[in-house]
Amino acid sequence: MASKLKIMPIGGLGEVGKNMMSIEYGRDILVIDAGMMFPELDMLGIDYIIPDWGYLKDKGDRIRALIITHGHQDHIGAVSHFLEEFDVPVYATRLTRGLIEVQLRQNHMLDRTTLHTIAPRDVLDFGPFKVEPFHVCHSIPDTVGLGITTPAGLIVHSGDFKLDHTPVDGWPTDMAKLADFSRRGVKVLLADSTNADQPGTTPSEAVLDDVFHHIMREAPGRLIVATFASLISRVQQVVNVAARNNRKVAVAGRTMVDNTKMARELGYLEIPDPMLMTLSDIQKLPPHEALIVATGSQGEPMGVLNRLATGRHPSLSIERDDTVVLSSHTIPGNEEMVNGVINRLFQRGADVYYDPVVQVHVSGHASQEEQKLLISMLRPEYFVPIHGELRHLKLHGKLACELGIPEENVAVVENGYPLTLVDGELRIGKRAPGGYVFVDGSLVGETGPVVLRERDALGQSGFVTAIIRYDIKSGNSVGRPRIVTQGFVFVPEADELLSRAEQVVRSAARAEPGTPAEEIEARIGRALSDYLYKETRRKPLVSSAVLPE
Amino acid sequence: MASKLKIMPIGGLGEVGKNMMSIEYGRDILVIDAGMMFPELDMLGIDYIIPDWGYLKDKGDRIRALIITHGHQDHIGAVSHFLEEFDVPVYATRLTRGLIEVQLRQNHMLDRTTLHTIAPRDVLDFGPFKVEPFHVCHSIPDTVGLGITTPAGLIVHSGDFKLDHTPVDGWPTDMAKLADFSRRGVKVLLADSTNADQPGTTPSEAVLDDVFHHIMREAPGRLIVATFASLISRVQQVVNVAARNNRKVAVAGRTMVDNTKMARELGYLEIPDPMLMTLSDIQKLPPHEALIVATGSQGEPMGVLNRLATGRHPSLSIERDDTVVLSSHTIPGNEEMVNGVINRLFQRGADVYYDPVVQVHVSGHASQEEQKLLISMLRPEYFVPIHGELRHLKLHGKLACELGIPEENVAVVENGYPLTLVDGELRIGKRAPGGYVFVDGSLVGETGPVVLRERDALGQSGFVTAIIRYDIKSGNSVGRPRIVTQGFVFVPEADELLSRAEQVVRSAARAEPGTPAEEIEARIGRALSDYLYKETRRKPLVSSAVLPE
Repeated sequence: MASKLKIMPIGGLGEVGKNMMSIEYGRDILVIDAGMMFPELDMLGIDYIIPDWGYLKDKGDRIRALIITHGHQDHIGAVSHFLEEFDVPVYATRLTRGLIEVQLRQNHMLDRTTLHTIAPRDVLDFGPFKVEPFHVCHSIPDTVGLGITTPAGLIVHSGDFKLDHTPVDGWPTDMAKLADFSRRGVKVLLADSTNADQPGTTPSEAVLDDVFHHIMREAPGRLIVATFASLISRVQQVVNVAARNNRKVAVAGRTMVDNTKMARELGYLEIPDPMLMTLSDIQKLPPHEALIVATGSQGEPMGVLNRLATGRHPSLSIERDDTVVLSSHTIPGNEEMVNGVINRLFQRGADVYYDPVVQVHVSGHASQEEQKLLISMLRPEYFVPIHGELRHLKLHGKLACELGIPEENVAVVENGYPLTLVDGELRIGKRAPGGYVFVDGSLVGETGPVVLRERDALGQSGFVTAIIRYDIKSGNSVGRPRIVTQGFVFVPEADELLSRAEQVVRSAARAEPGTPAEEIEARIGRALSDYLYKETRRKPLVSSAVLPE
Repeated sequence: MASKLKIMPIGGLGEVGKNMMSIEYGRDILVIDAGMMFPELDMLGIDYIIPDWGYLKDKGDRIRALIITHGHQDHIGAVSHFLEEFDVPVYATRLTRGLIEVQLRQNHMLDRTTLHTIAPRDVLDFGPFKVEPFHVCHSIPDTVGLGITTPAGLIVHSGDFKLDHTPVDGWPTDMAKLADFSRRGVKVLLADSTNADQPGTTPSEAVLDDVFHHIMREAPGRLIVATFASLISRVQQVVNVAARNNRKVAVAGRTMVDNTKMARELGYLEIPDPMLMTLSDIQKLPPHEALIVATGSQGEPMGVLNRLATGRHPSLSIERDDTVVLSSHTIPGNEEMVNGVINRLFQRGADVYYDPVVQVHVSGHASQEEQKLLISMLRPEYFVPIHGELRHLKLHGKLACELGIPEENVAVVENGYPLTLVDGELRIGKRAPGGYVFVDGSLVGETGPVVLRERDALGQSGFVTAIIRYDIKSGNSVGRPRIVTQGFVFVPEADELLSRAEQVVRSAARAEPGTPAEEIEARIGRALSDYLYKETRRKPLVSSAVLPE
């Protein structure tokens, strides 16, 4: 009997955006990507989330390589965490490797990591796997998809892709290689579903040239363009248009400065030396000769844009003739912050351009027509939508069916469901356990649902803790109770409420002689909760500490 | 000298969505609308926000009327609160009045309130003001704009409007009345800016007919349509299409049940008796004969849709052949909740339609071309954009300038800036004080920024309170310290951290004999914060209670 091939999307159920996956044949395992995701609104205090790779825990010695498709955080953000647990070599293209090195250096792990540079059209052998990276267009240069020849057939992994025929770097998706895969016969296609709810074709990056040119020509003063620090192509594009308009460029925001520096060194970003200025020097130019590229397009509190909007940037402030462009897609959950920043920029007198008022951003992901093209071109026997929320996977799966792939050959699965190819047939296995792994300060994986529920309740109504000394023998409290409270009411104005709360505590602490302290604590908790709810219709977290004499 | 006319957008700076305004001439004041807004993401624990009407506080006896333009929460939600402070008669059209009555009844205020029904084309006299309500299309029936003739000239208030020529109720915006105003000469136009960032024309409600018909015909089983409870026209539209497709209708969700009942009684919603079924009866029909109209299209935790998505609805559950339609715009800030609900509905096997996959919703507000038409038609001397965030007001102001209204005649102001017309000239005055008024349980206006900051910090990392008995004379602690903590770490797994924290507390409480308890409290706070940050890189709210012996 043939060995079986196993494809496993790694992580907790319902999670998205970490894009990690393992491919297993016999004893050998390849891991693709290790991203992190930002917490959802109800995950209070969590810094970020990494994949739950419990499934790989006892298989470390079988992992041949971690292969990374591109340098965005949702594909590389968990690399350090992963390498702390698994000592495996990492394979990535030059720019992607550069971004991973920045992360590893910050975590003092660069020296003990083996990194290999790969290039599109390379052929890499890992035991039973032959891996062929191929170039795809995305919103960061040097992105690849992967052709993986296995004893069970050819698997194609699209990476994050779009079919831009006129990208900024002039390097379109490698259609010839895709045609080659098609000719060889594709057993399984794993394809990017991010934009599966977008009809039509994602516009080319080239459409932004005219928009930026028009804005730059009309802007009476400085132009400030905010975008993702990793959107190297967008920075290049804005710089190109600035050159045509005789504007110099300065870069604001630490990550943006680091990334542009690294990308220039590696040759992925061309800014002629005389054109690049420091933030302080550029402010000495006539305003209409200045372009500032900045971070903060998601409204992040510490991003440059928010600091400008709130007047808290150390060396730059918004002037009446400034024009600000938000050149990025707003990640769901950030809308309110982004809108707030836009309002405040207007308030300070700037003119602000953003989607949908003007098209100042195009997506880096394929829309439905491109997704269809990929499927039609590769004509895979099996189709597995990846990268996206379940709704995107479902819609992408529907598309594949519309193109004639039999419904039973389309596998829409969430993280943790293994797909196995046995005797040429793809089956969905039983879910492997796995949940959210939260990074919370220096605590990795220790903060769980109980703590999050407490944080939620505290955020809603704060807490009230009653403290009292208590004499078990007499069953009476000693001295005056002490009430500690935060996040519930404004204490200087709640004198009456709180002094009556002391009375409630004292009464609850009056008991039969010999009543144990724990019993008194429970009584105080109940009485105080009831009293506070009755008075305020709110439910703070109430606790009590009864200190026996 | 002529008396001056004063137009005042009521409320705190930066607030939107409460849409309250006063118009004042001599001693007389008219108030238009009194809405509430839902809290922003960083306003933890707040139920909702009402306008800060401090400006009107000492002018209660001069208010002639509260006139309401339509029955959405952002126009009527604060009516009860307002009437508790100001004893003034309320004027509204029939359906709007019905919705206000529901609110007043819930607050036991219906008996002591004077309500007047008005109709489009009425002429109402309030001292120096002649008010002419005129019909406008919006996403709720019976919406009006207002023509207000004053000694200083004619003011036109658009209400929330769109120029739909084929609305569901067949009653388009009263263009003839607008033409009449134009002929009489408009001094000031106050116009709805909500969609000022949307190019083109808002599609007519009629475009949804075909979409719903197609979905209903293709759906193999039950169809569940979720929308706003106040979107009476959408309910009518779905019901009409259901009739054509031989489906019966049931209504789910308390507000939806109340509103449809009231709207049917008043004749604003036509559902033939035999077509309307209870939620339990409709489940006995063959699935493809059932339509369920439900609440929860914003992903609200208690809405029907979320309860279906999480399997927590008492009498209804999602089946494999169900089709769910989310027929509403997602309010910024709700995207993540809505997406979560969609994913879970897919997970339970339903097919889900939502914007942008299919156009299942159209806006109730005018887009740029309609806004331009209104301005061109009325040719006002002064233009004041209202209803919307500052960015919308700015963009709407820009539109007016493009149409030839001189820049100095366009007043883009936030809440609290009075506009005065003196000798025919409009001026922007100095801002009246005003801030956010939070409704927090039964506390109205008492929860402020200090409490919100504490809630935010508690939500991020919880709290730790150290309690210890202390002998001032010896400068030593007595007994073992007690640590109360929630929302910080999972206590059953944090033994070591917390028992070492006790050590830290005990050391900090060792002092010179005679050191006062307050000093010890401060020392413990500092030592404990430092220790916990060093160990966990988190900053819980630390407090301490030192009980002197």
